[in-house]
Amino acid sequence: MIIVLKSGTSEADVTDVERRIRAMGYTPHTIHGELRNVIGAIGDDRGKERLRALESLECVESVTPILQPFKLASREVKRANTQVAVGNAVVGGRDIVVMAGPCSVESRWQVLDVAHRVKAAGARVLRGGAFKPRTSPYAFQGLEEEGLKLLAEARRETGLPVITEVMEPDKVDVVAEYSDILQIGARNVQNFSLLRRVGEAGKPVLLKRGMSTSIQEWLLSAEYVLAGGNPNVILCERGIRTFETATRFTLDLNAVPVLKKLTHLPVVVDPSHGTGHWEYVESMAMAGVAAGADGLLIEVHPKPEEALSDGPQSLKPDKFAMLMSRVRKIAQAVERDI
Amino acid sequence: MIIVLKSGTSEADVTDVERRIRAMGYTPHTIHGELRNVIGAIGDDRGKERLRALESLECVESVTPILQPFKLASREVKRANTQVAVGNAVVGGRDIVVMAGPCSVESRWQVLDVAHRVKAAGARVLRGGAFKPRTSPYAFQGLEEEGLKLLAEARRETGLPVITEVMEPDKVDVVAEYSDILQIGARNVQNFSLLRRVGEAGKPVLLKRGMSTSIQEWLLSAEYVLAGGNPNVILCERGIRTFETATRFTLDLNAVPVLKKLTHLPVVVDPSHGTGHWEYVESMAMAGVAAGADGLLIEVHPKPEEALSDGPQSLKPDKFAMLMSRVRKIAQAVERDI
Amino acid sequence: MIIVLKSGTSEADVTDVERRIRAMGYTPHTIHGELRNVIGAIGDDRGKERLRALESLECVESVTPILQPFKLASREVKRANTQVAVGNAVVGGRDIVVMAGPCSVESRWQVLDVAHRVKAAGARVLRGGAFKPRTSPYAFQGLEEEGLKLLAEARRETGLPVITEVMEPDKVDVVAEYSDILQIGARNVQNFSLLRRVGEAGKPVLLKRGMSTSIQEWLLSAEYVLAGGNPNVILCERGIRTFETATRFTLDLNAVPVLKKLTHLPVVVDPSHGTGHWEYVESMAMAGVAAGADGLLIEVHPKPEEALSDGPQSLKPDKFAMLMSRVRKIAQAVERDI
Amino acid sequence: MIIVLKSGTSEADVTDVERRIRAMGYTPHTIHGELRNVIGAIGDDRGKERLRALESLECVESVTPILQPFKLASREVKRANTQVAVGNAVVGGRDIVVMAGPCSVESRWQVLDVAHRVKAAGARVLRGGAFKPRTSPYAFQGLEEEGLKLLAEARRETGLPVITEVMEPDKVDVVAEYSDILQIGARNVQNFSLLRRVGEAGKPVLLKRGMSTSIQEWLLSAEYVLAGGNPNVILCERGIRTFETATRFTLDLNAVPVLKKLTHLPVVVDPSHGTGHWEYVESMAMAGVAAGADGLLIEVHPKPEEALSDGPQSLKPDKFAMLMSRVRKIAQAVERDI
Repeated sequence: MIIVLKSGTSEADVTDVERRIRAMGYTPHTIHGELRNVIGAIGDDRGKERLRALESLECVESVTPILQPFKLASREVKRANTQVAVGNAVVGGRDIVVMAGPCSVESRWQVLDVAHRVKAAGARVLRGGAFKPRTSPYAFQGLEEEGLKLLAEARRETGLPVITEVMEPDKVDVVAEYSDILQIGARNVQNFSLLRRVGEAGKPVLLKRGMSTSIQEWLLSAEYVLAGGNPNVILCERGIRTFETATRFTLDLNAVPVLKKLTHLPVVVDPSHGTGHWEYVESMAMAGVAAGADGLLIEVHPKPEEALSDGPQSLKPDKFAMLMSRVRKIAQAVERDI
Repeated sequence: MIIVLKSGTSEADVTDVERRIRAMGYTPHTIHGELRNVIGAIGDDRGKERLRALESLECVESVTPILQPFKLASREVKRANTQVAVGNAVVGGRDIVVMAGPCSVESRWQVLDVAHRVKAAGARVLRGGAFKPRTSPYAFQGLEEEGLKLLAEARRETGLPVITEVMEPDKVDVVAEYSDILQIGARNVQNFSLLRRVGEAGKPVLLKRGMSTSIQEWLLSAEYVLAGGNPNVILCERGIRTFETATRFTLDLNAVPVLKKLTHLPVVVDPSHGTGHWEYVESMAMAGVAAGADGLLIEVHPKPEEALSDGPQSLKPDKFAMLMSRVRKIAQAVERDI
Repeated sequence: MIIVLKSGTSEADVTDVERRIRAMGYTPHTIHGELRNVIGAIGDDRGKERLRALESLECVESVTPILQPFKLASREVKRANTQVAVGNAVVGGRDIVVMAGPCSVESRWQVLDVAHRVKAAGARVLRGGAFKPRTSPYAFQGLEEEGLKLLAEARRETGLPVITEVMEPDKVDVVAEYSDILQIGARNVQNFSLLRRVGEAGKPVLLKRGMSTSIQEWLLSAEYVLAGGNPNVILCERGIRTFETATRFTLDLNAVPVLKKLTHLPVVVDPSHGTGHWEYVESMAMAGVAAGADGLLIEVHPKPEEALSDGPQSLKPDKFAMLMSRVRKIAQAVERDI
Repeated sequence: MIIVLKSGTSEADVTDVERRIRAMGYTPHTIHGELRNVIGAIGDDRGKERLRALESLECVESVTPILQPFKLASREVKRANTQVAVGNAVVGGRDIVVMAGPCSVESRWQVLDVAHRVKAAGARVLRGGAFKPRTSPYAFQGLEEEGLKLLAEARRETGLPVITEVMEPDKVDVVAEYSDILQIGARNVQNFSLLRRVGEAGKPVLLKRGMSTSIQEWLLSAEYVLAGGNPNVILCERGIRTFETATRFTLDLNAVPVLKKLTHLPVVVDPSHGTGHWEYVESMAMAGVAAGADGLLIEVHPKPEEALSDGPQSLKPDKFAMLMSRVRKIAQAVERDI
């Protein structure tokens, strides 16, 4: 931590701040500048949260951390990429893993039809929502356990492992029973009770970025899962909220190389939510892979115009197949494959 | 809903969209413009979410809702202000209700000391966190049930009703046992499982705005609680996330008059989180009341420089007393009182 | 400046960075932390921009400034509030100065009618646009010099000094001839050629914040004017761009106390642009004064529904008179007046 | 335009709004909904700006435009891609055009050295700043006309056409004399005087997006240039301002497919400003091309650690050559080349 003192601070104040730093277990190191004094507090930054309280002293201008506050998620702690095995796919390995399927499981026919078609196009994981977080209480809330069973049936029929969302701690067990990856949605990225609970589950976790979660906060949320004992965390960029309204969200592909620098965890991109319009999904899927993503999460529906949720951003199966052939060429251009 | 068709759409396409609108139970009304056709879909907009799926048709440019999607929260449905009684205070009545206390309950001495002092200064409700949502798993997570008991003791000693946060559905009962108002934090504003659960609780709910929640989404979250059968919802503006870094968040006081227009629910402002710096809290508390807020939520700590959380934004008790005297003058200028 | 080195940096790298710091004219002061080394570069931060280039070295993690980069605008350099005299009003003095009038000057009748009515209600300065920055080239662009003459006529008739916008360096002389305050619009806040030019003008400058300008950048723009030799700069908060669409912009009232801490320049609030809807203007005008603003800038039009620009956010004269009576009470509650 | 009336509006009010619409030259078409009446105003939307003023009527809830407000920039008006010839490169044709060079021209040696090296790596245009828009008045402001001459010398030596920024209307002629493309910087995207002036220049214009300019506003700025008679406009996405601080800006690659849908103008991506860190430039350059961009704008400096501006985001020449070889593979994967 760097503690910046206000200009004109007395020597007694400097001494007082140094004393407080020592009392919290750190070693102060003071630099006397021309206009201001700055004190470095030496010790492990990760426990230094308490030093921030010094900002409430009248003589302190600001308290700035030097180290990233996450530890288990950090590439400084583990240099080699984490690889998460799901069925016979490996997220974070050489190949791009595409997870595709409907936003919501709506019927047996719908999910089986899509499952066969996304598999034929090269998807390695089937996505589908059974418990749905909906902005309005009056919108379709998902088929719940019935939906989970339909996903499991699609897995039996196609061999595709399944990813689906879990929304509350109490449902982790039942979702884990039917699912191969537990998805934490954007709205739950700082639902710490849920993060702790999936940290104890034996299944991989795909953690979506919140719509206004900074990359640092996102990695701290991953840290909750890792600290709970679950090393299999996949990060998913899905668009952040900005002033632009031409798209539903702004897909932040900068996050891909930033994450590749900061963490060893695999990174997946969701261009369906990240744009909100099916017409833009293919371009952004290609861009995501070119930026270095390890996988894609894409919404596919046999009849988007009748979908019970997210119709505007869902691709028809034939458009998805076209996307896959184009994304494959990008993957090969970066010496990977699908 | 207004469905805008792309320019150059054929008459057959228009007929097809009209047919689909009828199939969903609405009446289409087509306006033939000079460059585009526009179709109004007549019926209750609140169930019209499904019409949005039409946006996935090639011939459709956009689908735009006309009505606000919330119902029970709307001032169109209930014109009179909702008043929420808490102890002998009424949130949403003539008087400004100030809720004050520490970010976290840290010790018996701390919470009792603050409780007496904020009461003496005119606060009507004691705030304090027992279950703390912390960005980092390594930060202080709260005293949990022990903290709830200390709050209850402070209530017995001072007579102040208590507000504290509940973070997961399973804890609603225990928090409701000790608390007079259940606080839903910014990070849980779209934790729909939790919203449904507090909708069934018999205690008032204070619902904080998420850091990137639009006012419309926020009111839909309130709608979850109201639809669950709990009419006592208080909304709390606590700052949104923007590009500005001079403050921790940007307190959106525009939200106060916007909410007063759209909804009958009472509105409270939290200048402590909304600024993140104690030096700005008083000014923004005054501004909040001038903008029309019904109450304030303010962090007070006997020793902010040693606080286990949110020290930089906590006021010392004497500064809080000063704030109260200034806010009182603003309240009187708008024909209210504290 | 604080230069943070990456973990695992060699002693040779530390020495190299120290050498480079010295070569740029600063004194390095190295703190050896547990995980990282941090180097403070001592000297005047305001010229230290070049030190930022060190961030491109492989061994450097980040370069963080300690001092605010503005100087003449800083309260550390000049503690006493700057007061800007305009006609017989003083912006930054005890009284709140309200500047009111139409968005655009549209006709002789319109501007004279409004001028008399805002004066009667207590406004001290007449606002009106002659050169209009319009998003679309097809929108009304202002009456230009003809508009300036009408403003001057209104000043003669009412005695109210005039504020109007100047959009390009070449027009500064003609605008200064007719106007008492030169307004720099939000879209020109970083038009540095224009800032330099008004820095040489003999008239006060009202500098609006850009819609995504940080407070620090805004003060650096003010610094351009001050460094040009013009000490009479008024800052005007007019709303920033955020994700919220219920209002046209998000009026950032946090900026008022932040500015009052950082700078000696007077601060004015524009609730008309800051909300974009006439229904919210009064509440936010009151909030702005309660937050500590020295003045208000408000759009008033005799027939908003026929205005050539900004009709939705313009008040009718009788609504403006009501606003003034309410704002006066707030001003008195903070020991000021209108 | 769609005019939405408030619920409970009287028939007399509806008639009054219809009358006003007719008075402005449009044909009203009223839809009587269950809860609200909606009036479509038929006529050319592009002149309908004035209809927005109806929003100030008490009975009007909102006024929503249906058509995009730009015309010459629209793909509806001109379907074929615009191709802008610069030297022997064509921006908007089959090949990706890479424009590279230093942020600022600093010396003869620097600009010539970089020019030769970026040419050798495959760049087709030399970039370099002579007039620099700098946030601080105390930062290096560019070599001005001396810098233009050095750029012209580099062009003679290498044959590379030159792009450089123009900051004010008065300098358009001198910059056009030395430069092949006139760059309008992000801070001037709504400097309408400057846009009008370059609309009259005989040179292509590269128009950067502002840091908080919506795509619609950006295209309206392009419309100013096109309406001035200059058809050769290149759009450049360079990152928008968001809450994320891990990167300097958030490069909005969603904008690429959105622009490709809305407009015929070529689109270039600037990953140097869009990320602010040299380590992320290569990934985002690749992503930009995969998303469909027609070109790249990249900062290259022989010694970034001594650069007078933008050192942290500048690539060394050898890193730039590496980037080019990787971007070429992506270009080929999308059936283009460099």
